[in-house]
Parts: sequence; structure tokens; C-alpha cells
Amino acid sequence: MKKFLAIVAYDGTNFCGFQIQKDARTVQKVIEQALERIFKQRVTISASGRTDTGVHAVGQAVVFNCPIHIDSTSMKNALNANLPDDVYVRKIIEVTEDFHPRFDAKRRIYHYFLYNSREPNLFIRNYAWWFPYELDIEKMRMAAKFLEGEHDFKSFMKSDHVEQNTTRTIYRIRIVKMRGRLILIRVEGRSFLRRMVRNIVGALVKVGTGEWDIEKIKELLELKDRSQAAATAPSHGLYFYSVDF
Amino acid sequence: MKKFLAIVAYDGTNFCGFQIQKDARTVQKVIEQALERIFKQRVTISASGRTDTGVHAVGQAVVFNCPIHIDSTSMKNALNANLPDDVYVRKIIEVTEDFHPRFDAKRRIYHYFLYNSREPNLFIRNYAWWFPYELDIEKMRMAAKFLEGEHDFKSFMKSDHVEQNTTRTIYRIRIVKMRGRLILIRVEGRSFLRRMVRNIVGALVKVGTGEWDIEKIKELLELKDRSQAAATAPSHGLYFYSVDF
Repeated sequence: MKKFLAIVAYDGTNFCGFQIQKDARTVQKVIEQALERIFKQRVTISASGRTDTGVHAVGQAVVFNCPIHIDSTSMKNALNANLPDDVYVRKIIEVTEDFHPRFDAKRRIYHYFLYNSREPNLFIRNYAWWFPYELDIEKMRMAAKFLEGEHDFKSFMKSDHVEQNTTRTIYRIRIVKMRGRLILIRVEGRSFLRRMVRNIVGALVKVGTGEWDIEKIKELLELKDRSQAAATAPSHGLYFYSVDF
Repeated sequence: MKKFLAIVAYDGTNFCGFQIQKDARTVQKVIEQALERIFKQRVTISASGRTDTGVHAVGQAVVFNCPIHIDSTSMKNALNANLPDDVYVRKIIEVTEDFHPRFDAKRRIYHYFLYNSREPNLFIRNYAWWFPYELDIEKMRMAAKFLEGEHDFKSFMKSDHVEQNTTRTIYRIRIVKMRGRLILIRVEGRSFLRRMVRNIVGALVKVGTGEWDIEKIKELLELKDRSQAAATAPSHGLYFYSVDF
């Protein structure tokens, strides 16, 4: 049986996250429903990363077995014709039978957008975190340097979550001032703990306002205690941008 | 009694247009409801231009009488605290008793955004018209020149609409290639007929694809017949950008 990898974008605003849940609109559910209409049978998809409620994706990777005879272009068109307008399949690639979107992922990139302006912009209210206070980008960049490399990120994990191994590697964090008062925080790593990117953004913003010293980030890593950390940045600024295999 | 002019932005996606209607969510209704909560009495607002379902505003001008003692900054804050998150009051100015937002308007500017790319971008699906075919911007600019100045715009009016005087003056039309495959069509005039901007955009796009010659726009003006014109461009690309008094 053919196995397909789909690169999927979605607007997380009206989804209760990626993972299937009873009585909730999730990305996995609408994709599996679309596939069921096309294949006339149920299939289960697997993805590179689960995203929380409100989190968007530009390039989520989704894998499924294909029980019918169809080429990748027709598969893409059939899926898009059966998906709601807040999910879009950008590309379909045939993969080998042993391919796994989670375990085979070598690099994941997340984007986080801040809208840094005194006045809100309602047209992007679901697509960037409106942050009305001044931010020192240089300080945020210096603080981000402490997070690059292999560390125990226990202080940056979802507080009520249990995870055996909380060591992760961040390849790089870039902070870019964009046009239109947008600030992009781009985080690259192999894999991430739950809420890790949003907790990193929350901490960097505290450095940016001057509430925290740059060194506080280093201390937090050493403390390994989530309760000492900053508030989690809101979900609607976060995008699962891409994954490399 | 004080009279206030409010400069209001709104995301038209979830509104049935501006004007109050029974059993429909309209911009006028939510603003009047917010004012009623603040003033503890009903007030009626008037605006510079009515926008249709799905049409956005960056700078709609809204005027109302203020029966309580309040300064303009507090008025702005009180309104924003009582408005839903898809309407935002950008500014409040005190105006004289005889000020009228419709009759005193000297210049109105509308913006229309096209997203000109083969693949759609779901994050702007409600904010720009996705147009996947190639457009010749130079031809569109030449065609737009025919529309500038004083003309009978009967061919560009909402088809089932009755209007005594269909002569209007367009001061200027600018077509700008923006970043991210966006095309902005900016139309400046004193006042406009219903659907006029969207019908102009529909016609210019026909010239851009090559389906129509540039001269067809001139002919349309002379024909004074809506049935000969292009399809109306969709509402979600249109923004009531600003009004000068």
C-alpha cells in the first residue's frame, strides 16, 4: 500500500488543537473525515507534532496509508476539495512504508509572531500576540543565546505535564524585526517539550521589557522548576512552521 | 450636548454589513449597544459610508451625540471596553453640532487587496481576494486612468439599485504591488455608488488577465449599462480605508 506525506497548513483559530478528541473540532478529525470521504473507509493519520488549541501550522507533516490507486497530485486536489477552508494541503509526497513523521523528524521550526504596537490591529488579532510595551530586541537576542544547545528544559515545560526526559536541543533562536511592527521569534530544534516554545517566548518577553535580567534565563535552566518561569505566551502567535526529515 | 466623531476599524468577516438590521449582527448594532451600556440610554449613530457584508474598515467615521459628561480619551476607552474584539475605536474627536459624517465628507479612500498567487494563503482568506491567474499591472493602471475624473458610473453600480444621479468623481486610482504577492488597488473619490469600488476592481482584473482590452473600460462608461460589466469582486478584499472632512 502507498504511504503519503502531506504538508499541511491550518488556521488554528477555530480548532481545539490537532489531536483527535470526542465532540471537538480538531485538525486530525477534519483530515481523517476528508480521507474517509475519498477512500470510502476509515484511516488514521499521524503527524510530526501535536499543536494546542489556537496554534497554527504552515507546514505540519501528516502521514497516512493510501488504500486506493491515486497519484500525489490528484490526492492533493481530492483532499483540498474535501477539507474546510481553514486547512490546506500544500504538497503530497510518496514515502516509504517505514517512514514515521514523528521519529524521523530531524529538525522542527516554530515561528512566533508578536505585534509590538501601542494600539491593537484587529485584522491580526488571531495571528500574532499583541504586546503594547517596548521591547529591547538586543537583550532578547542575548538571552536567547543561553537557550541554544542541549539543556534540561524542565523549567520551560507545561507545568502539569509528566515527561521522563526533559533534555532537548535547540539548534538556533532568531529574533527578527519585521515590517508592520511585527517581531518574529524563530526557534529551531530537533524536538520540543509541551508548551516549550510558548514558555520560551514568555521568558524572552520578560527580558525584553527589562523585568528580568538576561542572566535570569540561565538561572531558570539551572533551577529546573517550571513554577519559577514566566507566563506562557498565548497560543495564537505560534506557528508550526516546518519539519525536515 | 457634545457630539463625537469616532474613527472605527472593524473586521467585516462576521458582520452582515454596517447598517442596522433586525436579527442580524451589524457594526451599527454592536456600536449602538456599546453606547447604550455606557450612556444608559439609546443613541443612534450615523456613518460616512455603509459597508456591505464582509467588507472591512480601517477608518470608518461614526458620529453620535453624547448625553453624559465625558472627555474623548475616556470615551474611547469606554467604547473599546464595551465592543467585541472585531471592532476597535482608533480615535475620538469632538465635533460641532452641525457636523455630518456623510454630507461633510470631502474625500473617501477605499483599499482593495488581491492575493495574486497560484496557491491560496489561508491566513488571509478573509482579508484579500485570492486570484490565482497572472495579472498585467501596467495594463490595469492604464485602464484605471479612464475611470479617473467625473463620469457617469451607471455601468459600475449595483445592478438592482435605483439611483437618480449616477455621476461621481474619482480623484485617483493607484495600483501597487506589495510584498507577499499582494496587490493593492486604492481608489479615492468624493463619494461612491453602491458596489462601485468592487465593480471597478472586477473590471480592472478582466483587463489584467487580458480577457478585456484597456479600451473596454472606456466603452463601459459610455454604455451606462451594468449588465455589460464584469462580475463584482468579492467583498472580503475591500476596506473602507479613510475619510477626510
